[in-house]
Amino acid sequence: MDINVVNALTYEDFVKLFGNVVEKCPLIPAAIWSHLPFKDLADVEAHIREFIHSLPDSGKEGVLRCHPDLAGLDLQSGTLTRESQEEQSQAGMTTLDSAESLQMYTLNTEYKERFGFPFVICARLNSKADIVRQLSERLKNDRAAERERAVEEVTKICSLRLRNIFLSDIQTKL
Amino acid sequence: MDINVVNALTYEDFVKLFGNVVEKCPLIPAAIWSHLPFKDLADVEAHIREFIHSLPDSGKEGVLRCHPDLAGLDLQSGTLTRESQEEQSQAGMTTLDSAESLQMYTLNTEYKERFGFPFVICARLNSKADIVRQLSERLKNDRAAERERAVEEVTKICSLRLRNIFLSDIQTKL
Repeated sequence: MDINVVNALTYEDFVKLFGNVVEKCPLIPAAIWSHLPFKDLADVEAHIREFIHSLPDSGKEGVLRCHPDLAGLDLQSGTLTRESQEEQSQAGMTTLDSAESLQMYTLNTEYKERFGFPFVICARLNSKADIVRQLSERLKNDRAAERERAVEEVTKICSLRLRNIFLSDIQTKL
Repeated sequence: MDINVVNALTYEDFVKLFGNVVEKCPLIPAAIWSHLPFKDLADVEAHIREFIHSLPDSGKEGVLRCHPDLAGLDLQSGTLTRESQEEQSQAGMTTLDSAESLQMYTLNTEYKERFGFPFVICARLNSKADIVRQLSERLKNDRAAERERAVEEVTKICSLRLRNIFLSDIQTKL
């Protein structure tokens, strides 16, 4: 997909196309449409990153709270977004044995109680073992450091989702 | 519903319950959960209003762009959110004759071309005639004034949606 095609989109088609590059936050792509025209994919990414970083701490935590648990209830009940389903599946979250499931549940619960938002990690860039290790390690952070760490992961997820859309044929998406 | 019940909710149940008080922007209730405990309904409202007003202009426009057209494509194709469906129906948008439909389509299109976001109005507080009149009048605003005007309507819609939830039995919503 050419950036000129993106720059010619109505806000409606732009939000339809990019609405879930940040999980369940169509507000964010809808906001950056105000900055059209974009130079390239990196420019779109930069605007999204800048928007998220401009949010107050509560807003950053709000973005995190729009994310599902890894190997959590939404995965079990089939209510993940298409993007999350693909990512969690790729990271092996759909094929955990019962001991691994229990471990994820226990760590996720501890994490949410400690921070008040879910553990977010770019699943496409991490194996099952990496995820468990990082979840355990990041539990030791303080809330402010962990918020920033998690937002970094949101921008990595966003970057890969954007790339996916840019590499695809726009006609199949609208 | 008692405010103590609200204050005892996990962020997950809070977002489930209040996720659409601002149309398709679960980020916003998810963000204000950081400010728990709330004093009362008015306090919840105030935090949401404050959050929206703290957004950069692009963010306010992003909130507006998450709204559907009045009597638009989503209504015709049955893809409105439950809340929007009820509101548009109550304002008579589901029973327009063909001349009225054409008029709404023409005015909405002109509005979106002029401002780059859709016409937002609290449908519950306005009759069909009011809506058409205000849409014609607000078309004369400049973009900055109209952005603020539309955000005011978002907070009115939010206020009524919040009241609806507070008046209902929480058990039916979770």
